[in-house]
Amino acid sequence: MKNQTIKNLTIIKPQWLLPVDNAFQLLTETALLIEQDKIISLTPFAQLEDLAGFAEAHIIELPGQLLMPGLVNTHTHAAMSLLRGIADDRPLMDWLQNYIWPAENQWVDRQFIEDGVRLAVAEMMRGGTTCFNDMYFFPDVMAKTCQQMGMRAVSGLIVLDFPTVWAQNADEYLGKAMTVFDEIREMPLISAALAPHAPYTVSDQPLEKIAIYSSELDIPVHMHIHETQFEVDEAVKNTGLRPLERLDQLNLLTPNLIAVHMTSVNDLERERLAETGVHIVHCPESNLKLASGLCQVDQFHKLDINVCLGTDGAASNNDLDMFGEMRTAALLCKGLSGDASACNTEQSIRMATINGAKALGLAEQIGSLEVGKQADCIAIDFSGLNTQPIYDPISQLVYATNSLQVSNVWINGERKLADGEFIDFDTVEIIERAQQWMKKISGEKVSKKV
Amino acid sequence: MKNQTIKNLTIIKPQWLLPVDNAFQLLTETALLIEQDKIISLTPFAQLEDLAGFAEAHIIELPGQLLMPGLVNTHTHAAMSLLRGIADDRPLMDWLQNYIWPAENQWVDRQFIEDGVRLAVAEMMRGGTTCFNDMYFFPDVMAKTCQQMGMRAVSGLIVLDFPTVWAQNADEYLGKAMTVFDEIREMPLISAALAPHAPYTVSDQPLEKIAIYSSELDIPVHMHIHETQFEVDEAVKNTGLRPLERLDQLNLLTPNLIAVHMTSVNDLERERLAETGVHIVHCPESNLKLASGLCQVDQFHKLDINVCLGTDGAASNNDLDMFGEMRTAALLCKGLSGDASACNTEQSIRMATINGAKALGLAEQIGSLEVGKQADCIAIDFSGLNTQPIYDPISQLVYATNSLQVSNVWINGERKLADGEFIDFDTVEIIERAQQWMKKISGEKVSKKV
Repeated sequence: MKNQTIKNLTIIKPQWLLPVDNAFQLLTETALLIEQDKIISLTPFAQLEDLAGFAEAHIIELPGQLLMPGLVNTHTHAAMSLLRGIADDRPLMDWLQNYIWPAENQWVDRQFIEDGVRLAVAEMMRGGTTCFNDMYFFPDVMAKTCQQMGMRAVSGLIVLDFPTVWAQNADEYLGKAMTVFDEIREMPLISAALAPHAPYTVSDQPLEKIAIYSSELDIPVHMHIHETQFEVDEAVKNTGLRPLERLDQLNLLTPNLIAVHMTSVNDLERERLAETGVHIVHCPESNLKLASGLCQVDQFHKLDINVCLGTDGAASNNDLDMFGEMRTAALLCKGLSGDASACNTEQSIRMATINGAKALGLAEQIGSLEVGKQADCIAIDFSGLNTQPIYDPISQLVYATNSLQVSNVWINGERKLADGEFIDFDTVEIIERAQQWMKKISGEKVSKKV
Repeated sequence: MKNQTIKNLTIIKPQWLLPVDNAFQLLTETALLIEQDKIISLTPFAQLEDLAGFAEAHIIELPGQLLMPGLVNTHTHAAMSLLRGIADDRPLMDWLQNYIWPAENQWVDRQFIEDGVRLAVAEMMRGGTTCFNDMYFFPDVMAKTCQQMGMRAVSGLIVLDFPTVWAQNADEYLGKAMTVFDEIREMPLISAALAPHAPYTVSDQPLEKIAIYSSELDIPVHMHIHETQFEVDEAVKNTGLRPLERLDQLNLLTPNLIAVHMTSVNDLERERLAETGVHIVHCPESNLKLASGLCQVDQFHKLDINVCLGTDGAASNNDLDMFGEMRTAALLCKGLSGDASACNTEQSIRMATINGAKALGLAEQIGSLEVGKQADCIAIDFSGLNTQPIYDPISQLVYATNSLQVSNVWINGERKLADGEFIDFDTVEIIERAQQWMKKISGEKVSKKV
């Protein structure tokens, strides 16, 4: 590196650097060097001046700030941000069947997706999320919107048995999935996952095809599984099988499966999940809010199962705040397991970063700050009253950081947020669009008493 | 009102006004009128110009903002903010005996209290807390510091059996309690509570005296009770009585008792608590973080027991964010009870405001925005991405608001925060003092391997 000039070199000099690599060491006096979209070095401050290209480099000093990998939100429905707060204090099936599904059937179209995704992406970036895994209608619109905004995302190619605004039957969903899959190949920031909604909404035949496509294309399968005890009980009543058992028979339990929620899982199932390399997405705030059930994260950790974190959609959370989610996950795991050392700070930060990257098949590209990876990183400003004094910056990240303390965000080497301000888009216009949707939907809502 | 001129009239014109009175209605086009330190009227915008004194009034327009009562943090140890993050991921007794108590014995003095309380008060005000209930050493210093800063607080006159930096034995604690009680009478913003630490740290004789003093002076008794199952089991082993049973025999179960934590409570005890009018303080984040146990808030709600919220100290939370605490309480209650309608938005907001005022004996003065009460109120700016769009402002308060969205704070009619900026104190100096303590304490910590 010393013998050649580096083009477009950015040198970020934070007070603390947490790469979230295997060693999980907190570094000081160490800069992160970015060339174009990639991390090319972690270099001690003292050696920076010897560097070829140092004189022309763009140097960013971040005193009082910690630099770490961007957060990976491994389960959300981004466009549902337009339905934030439309129906609270209701259990999952009532909430879905009587509020969310009717509103979606009436209102969701391409424009709804674009406007909803823009609001969600802006909220996520502001709070330090640099990649998210989505499942919703019009995944093509979602993908294009994220690519345009410079957000990394995995577009979930949704599959259901029944008609919605996106398709009429499983065959049509699958056909559209393949079309969108081809469109997404052209988008550098976007990858694809097959997204069968849930075991109770997708029948065996499409699931068999999904297992084959996932294996042939080597892409993830993103699915709500065992979200509630009710779901498991109904499946046993109707099919004689627990959903996980059925998915196993359909060859879906593989390292490509991203199993979301998983609140009701027995010992045998946990062993089988460990054996097959399935990834779990824990969405603690959504599970609590809908009283869906309690995911036993410590039990998964004991078997070295990869557990990631998701906010779920803003209609069941009601924010897309991954710092909040990480904290809730850590606290809830301790409380439920009765073990204050469960889900410690290292585990919590891994759940919110590298574990998500692994589940999405992106661990070679993102999830930690290591040489050769894409530069997705965030800085947190610890000067706030709530993060002072600082005995342990890692403790502050999990137990005290407010997401609005995220000060700087880079995605794929591009700076998106500088000192808390967006660089390349206008949130006023995003919010105005969201308010227009709200007026339209709530006007209708009142007359329909939804 | 129309016929007399009002002096020092402030008219606050928010977009939404939530008084948190019995009706629990959200008002629009309604102003809050403050004269000196008191609320004198809630007046429709349309009638403001008819008002005597309107021309000279100080008018504050808050478009896009919601005005509500300031939050009441009903249990904390403010000065422990200087120990934030000193020891995480450890259970209660290990955390107390091996980390917190040794650090306190070595470091806590009058200056520690003053500096720690200043940091905590600033953090709380910034996040919308306008009154808190404290328990710690040097309650006289805590009281003076709060009065100086313009923060409303209840100073806990701590009592223990064993020697600490504050006193040597129960008699000395009680003697000092009475001295400080007299000093506090001169401080308009401060009231006092007797604060026996816990059933396992205070013996019968001082507790008998505390019951008498509380009854004679009509002041609250603030105590950690049934924080863990271990505490209850040990008490049964050592005394044959569960702690609540023993406190009942000592005449402490009265409407003056503020029982903090209460994670292990049986049906009979709940009935007795309802019958005697005891107040419960739920500290969900501290209970989860220390794996102390799970407080069954829905069971208390069913018996109409008054449940309030507290953050606990910043060493076990690790912030003093009452918006976060309210949200965690609401979500956790739903998740644990399996009922998504449990701890709804109204109950959650009451827990964070008026219920705390009731427990502290301050319900005639604060906790809601009603004519005749002291003007303790806060405004929340909903223009953030995470609180858009706004179908229901009340939902946003509980499920989506970030505490840094608190934009304006008044305590006792004095404006403390304006558009997110403190008016009358310097947080730079507060943070510098906190950092000096951290350096001193962690230098020692390293050499001692605490």
